[in-house]
Amino acid sequence: MSNNSFSAKDTDLSALFIGDKAENGQLYKDLLGKLVDEHLGWRQNYMPQDKPMISAEQQTSPEFQGTVNNMKDVLDELSARLRSQSVPWHNAGRYWGHMNSETLMPAILAYNYAMLWNGNNVAYESSPATSQMEEEVGLEFATLMGYTNGWGHIVADGSLANLEGLWYARNIKSLPFAMKAVDPTIVVGKTDWELSNMSTKEIMDLVEANGDKIDEIKAKSARGGKDLDKLGKWLVPQTKHYSWLKAADIIGIGLDQVIPVPVDSNYRMDINELEKIVRELASTETPILGVIGVIGSTEEGSVDGINEIAELRNKLVKEGIYFYFHVDAAYGAYGRAILLDEDNKLIPYKDLQSKFAEYNVFTEEENLVSEHTYNAYAAFPEAESVTIDPHKMGYIPYSAGGIAIQDMRMRDVISYFATYVFEKGADIPALLGAYILEGSKAGATAESVWAAHKTLPLNVTGYGKLVGASIEGARRFYNQASYVTGSIYGNEYLTSHTDFAIPDYGNSPFKFVNNLGVTEEGWEEAGKVTVLRAAVMTPYMNKEENFDYFAPKIKQAMQEKLEAIYEDRK
Amino acid sequence: MSNNSFSAKDTDLSALFIGDKAENGQLYKDLLGKLVDEHLGWRQNYMPQDKPMISAEQQTSPEFQGTVNNMKDVLDELSARLRSQSVPWHNAGRYWGHMNSETLMPAILAYNYAMLWNGNNVAYESSPATSQMEEEVGLEFATLMGYTNGWGHIVADGSLANLEGLWYARNIKSLPFAMKAVDPTIVVGKTDWELSNMSTKEIMDLVEANGDKIDEIKAKSARGGKDLDKLGKWLVPQTKHYSWLKAADIIGIGLDQVIPVPVDSNYRMDINELEKIVRELASTETPILGVIGVIGSTEEGSVDGINEIAELRNKLVKEGIYFYFHVDAAYGAYGRAILLDEDNKLIPYKDLQSKFAEYNVFTEEENLVSEHTYNAYAAFPEAESVTIDPHKMGYIPYSAGGIAIQDMRMRDVISYFATYVFEKGADIPALLGAYILEGSKAGATAESVWAAHKTLPLNVTGYGKLVGASIEGARRFYNQASYVTGSIYGNEYLTSHTDFAIPDYGNSPFKFVNNLGVTEEGWEEAGKVTVLRAAVMTPYMNKEENFDYFAPKIKQAMQEKLEAIYEDRK
Repeated sequence: MSNNSFSAKDTDLSALFIGDKAENGQLYKDLLGKLVDEHLGWRQNYMPQDKPMISAEQQTSPEFQGTVNNMKDVLDELSARLRSQSVPWHNAGRYWGHMNSETLMPAILAYNYAMLWNGNNVAYESSPATSQMEEEVGLEFATLMGYTNGWGHIVADGSLANLEGLWYARNIKSLPFAMKAVDPTIVVGKTDWELSNMSTKEIMDLVEANGDKIDEIKAKSARGGKDLDKLGKWLVPQTKHYSWLKAADIIGIGLDQVIPVPVDSNYRMDINELEKIVRELASTETPILGVIGVIGSTEEGSVDGINEIAELRNKLVKEGIYFYFHVDAAYGAYGRAILLDEDNKLIPYKDLQSKFAEYNVFTEEENLVSEHTYNAYAAFPEAESVTIDPHKMGYIPYSAGGIAIQDMRMRDVISYFATYVFEKGADIPALLGAYILEGSKAGATAESVWAAHKTLPLNVTGYGKLVGASIEGARRFYNQASYVTGSIYGNEYLTSHTDFAIPDYGNSPFKFVNNLGVTEEGWEEAGKVTVLRAAVMTPYMNKEENFDYFAPKIKQAMQEKLEAIYEDRK
Repeated sequence: MSNNSFSAKDTDLSALFIGDKAENGQLYKDLLGKLVDEHLGWRQNYMPQDKPMISAEQQTSPEFQGTVNNMKDVLDELSARLRSQSVPWHNAGRYWGHMNSETLMPAILAYNYAMLWNGNNVAYESSPATSQMEEEVGLEFATLMGYTNGWGHIVADGSLANLEGLWYARNIKSLPFAMKAVDPTIVVGKTDWELSNMSTKEIMDLVEANGDKIDEIKAKSARGGKDLDKLGKWLVPQTKHYSWLKAADIIGIGLDQVIPVPVDSNYRMDINELEKIVRELASTETPILGVIGVIGSTEEGSVDGINEIAELRNKLVKEGIYFYFHVDAAYGAYGRAILLDEDNKLIPYKDLQSKFAEYNVFTEEENLVSEHTYNAYAAFPEAESVTIDPHKMGYIPYSAGGIAIQDMRMRDVISYFATYVFEKGADIPALLGAYILEGSKAGATAESVWAAHKTLPLNVTGYGKLVGASIEGARRFYNQASYVTGSIYGNEYLTSHTDFAIPDYGNSPFKFVNNLGVTEEGWEEAGKVTVLRAAVMTPYMNKEENFDYFAPKIKQAMQEKLEAIYEDRK
C-alpha cells in the first residue's frame, strides 16, 4: 500500500486505536496536531497576498473575547454532558452489548482533517479529492464482494443501503415490461410470466443494446409509479429487521408484498421453506421480486446460507423462475476480508489455516471460520447487490454505510442524468447524487473509510486480522460463557438482553431452550426466551492475557444478570 | 443560553470561524486540545482499576512502531491529496460559487469531540447524551418554523428530508381510505373525493380518536403498497430540483404524478398558474397529493410565496379542495432566524429595522429583508413540513440535513413501533430509527448542530446575525456586479455558471434578458441564457473594508469570465 518496507504480516492492531485507557492518547494528539497544522498552513498559504478577513485589532476587542468565552461555555456544557451520559463502548472488557466498539484511529483522524475542508461528494466538481476517494472506496467494496465489473459507494447507513438495493430490484424488475411498452420487438415472444422472470444480466444486456431508447424505457419503468404491487413478492428472513419493513413501505411495493421465510434453529433462512414458498408463488404465476439473505443478523448474528440461496436460484432459473438477490451484510460484509488473499482472491477453504498462520490472524494456530460461513461468503458474487456498513465491522465512526452492486450498468437504471453512456471501467461520475438515493454527503466520510482501507486492506493482510481479533475474542467469550456458575458479586458490565418470541421466531428457538432442559410444553407456555445478547467487537480480546483478566468478572456479572432476569420473570 | 454575562448583542461572528487565513487557528487548536484531553481523561478514568489493554512493552515493539509508521504514511498521502485537490470555499474573497462556505468552529469542535464516543442516535439507549441533544435540536427546528406542537430531527441531507416529507404526505393522504376500509363509520358519509381532500388536522384528529384501531388502519394505508398512483398529483415548481424527481420515483407515487408549476420572471412559483392547475385537476376530481414551495431554490435563490400558497389553500379548502403542503427550505430555513425575536416570536415587519439595529445584524442601519421574503417566511407554520439543512445556511459541516413537522402526531403515521401512544410534549423516542427514514446515524452530527444552535440561538440574537452577514455581503456583491466594466486583468476567482433554458424554465428568464437588451426573437433563437452563479455565503463580506478590498478584483474577474463565455458562445 504505502511505499515503505513495512510488512502487513507484522501489523499490530493495538497501534491503530486510541486505546481502552487512552494508551495511545499522546500518539493521537501528535497525529491530530500535525494534520491540523497542515490544514491551517494551507489556509495561511492560499493566496497569501490577500488581506486577512479578521484583524488583530478585532481579535483583541471585548466583543471578540466575549464571543469566545460564550463559545467556551457552550463547549464546556457539551463536554460535561457527553462525559456524564455516554456509553463506554470503546471499553474492551466491560462493554459487550451492541455491535459498536472502539473505532480506528486513522479513520477518526481522516474525518477530523477532511471536515476542515467540508467537501460534499454529491458532485465531483465541488470536492475533487474526496470524490475521487469515494470512487476508490466504492470499487474496493465491489472487489471485496468478488464482483469483477461492480461498483459501490458510501451510504449514510445500512437501512438506506437496503432501501437502495430494493430500489434497484424494483426498477430492474419493471424494465422488461417497460421495454415491451416502448418497443415490443425488444422482448418479442415473451409472456408476462417470462418478462417477470428475466435475469438481471439479460435485462442489462437488453438495456445496453437499446441505449438509444433508454430514456423512454426508464420513463415507462417503475419510476413512473404504476403497478408496483404487481412486480412481485419480497422474501425476507422471518426474523425480519424492521428496516426491511420500512424499505418496502418507502419504496412503494408495500408491506403486503413482504413474505417472511421461516428460519431454522440456528436462525438461518430455511432453504427448503424458501424453495417451497417460491414454488407455491410460481404455481400461481406470482412473480418473486427478490430475496434477502442476511449475513450477521442484528439480534442473532446468524449467517444465512448465501450459497444455498444462490444454488436454489441457479436450479430455478432452468425452470424459468428468477428473483433479484440482495445480501444484507450490513454487519458482516467486512468479514469477507478474512477469506481473501493478498491479491483479493478467495482463499481455498483448505488453505485458510496456513494463510491465517502466515498473517497472524489468530493468536492461536487455528481456523475459526466454519465451512458454513465460508461457503456463504464465497457465494457473495452471485448476489446483485450487497449492503456493507463500515460503521459496523469496519470499525469506522458513524455514519458510514455502503452498498456494492454486481454490474456497473445497473446504476444507469436508477440514474437521473439526462443522457446515458454505458462505459466500462472506473469513470468518475460528474454528479454522484444522480446515481444514488441520497443528495449531499460528507466528503469526510469517504476520507475516513479510505484511510481505514489504506491502513488495513480489505483482505487477510489487513481487515482480515481485525475481523479475526473479533472472532477470536467471541470464541473466548463463548467458551467462557458456557459454564456460568459461582456466587453473585461484581457488576458494572454492560450487555443487553432481548426476547426471541414465537410471533417473530416461530419455534426456531426451541432447540436451544430444549438443550437447556425446557420441554415442548414449557416452551409453548412461555412463548419466548429472554437471552443476554453480546456482540464481541473489540481488537483486544483475542489476546489470552487480556481476556483472562476479565473472565472471572464477566462470569460473575452474567450470573447476576441471569438471576435478575429469572427473578423478574417469576 | 449560557450562565455568563455575555450579551448576544455583542456577538462577534469572526470569533466563531477558523478564519480565511487561519486567523483563529491557534484558538481552534487550543479548544480542540482541551476537548481531546477531556475525552482521553475520561477513558483513563473509566474503571481505573482495570488492566490497560495495550502494554508499554507492546508500544515499544518493532511491530507497533512499524504499524504506526505505516499509518503515518497513509495520513501523509491523504493530507497531500486533500491539500492539492480541494476547493477553497472557506475563502471569503475568492470563492463565490456554491452554497458552501467556512463552517462554524463550535460545530467542527463538537463533531470532532463527539466522534470520539461514536454515539449512534438510532436508539436512545445506546447514546443518551447525543440522542437527548438531537431531541433538543429537533424541537429547535420546530420552533424556528413557528410550529407550536411540532417536532423535528436531523436527516443526512435535504434530498432525504424531502423524501421523508413526501413519505408523510403519501401515507397521510391514504389514511382516510384506510379508515374507511377498517371501519366505515369513522368517515361515514364521505365520498372518495371528500376522502381525498381531508385536511391533515382532520385526519390526525380521527387517527387519534381511533387509537385502538391504529395498527389496522396503518396496515391498510399506503404502506401496504396499493394504488399509490391514485393518491394524487404532486405539484413542484417548474425549475424542479432533481431531488424531487428522485423522491417521487423512490416513494412509489411515480414521476407520472409530478406536475411542474410554471414560475414567473423572478423564478417564483406562479400562484395564478398553481390555482389554475389545481382547479383543472379538481374539475375532473383528480386529487392533489401535495404542493412544494421552495425557499432558496438551488440555481436561482428564489423565494416562493409560501404565504400565497397557504392563502390559496385556505381559499380552496372552503371549496372542498385540500393538498399537503411541504416547504423545501433546505437552503433557506435558517433565514427565518432573522425574523424571530429573543423569545422566538415573529417580529412585526415594521419593527424589523429597529430590532436589526439593536442586535447589530447589519453593519449599516437598514432592513435588507423585502416584504415578499418576510411574508413568505411568516407563513411557514401553515405548511405540514419543512426541510432545513444545517449544512447549508446553518454553516455546519456535512452531512447535516433536517426536517420539521407541524404536528407531532404525524410521526406516528410513519412509525414502526408495535404500540402507539399519542402523547403531547417532548417525550424522547426509545428508538428514533422507528420514526424516521434512516437507521443508524452519527450522534456527532447532533452535537455539532446542538453546539452551533447553543452558540447562535435560532433567532435575531444568534443566527439572525450570521444570516444577516450573508445578506449584506450579497447586497454588496449585487451592487458591485451591476456595473461590470474595465479592462481584463486578474483571475483566480471562483464562481460557477449555469444555463437557464426554455425546457426547464419556459420564458421566465425573458424579462431578465430583455432588460439587458435581448429581443423576444433573440431569446427564442438562443433558447437559453448562461449566467454566472454566485452564492454569497460568508461571515466576512458584510464589512465594507473587507468587501472593498476584493471589489475591484472581482469586477475584473467577472468581466474576464463573461467575455470568455461570450467568446465560447460566438
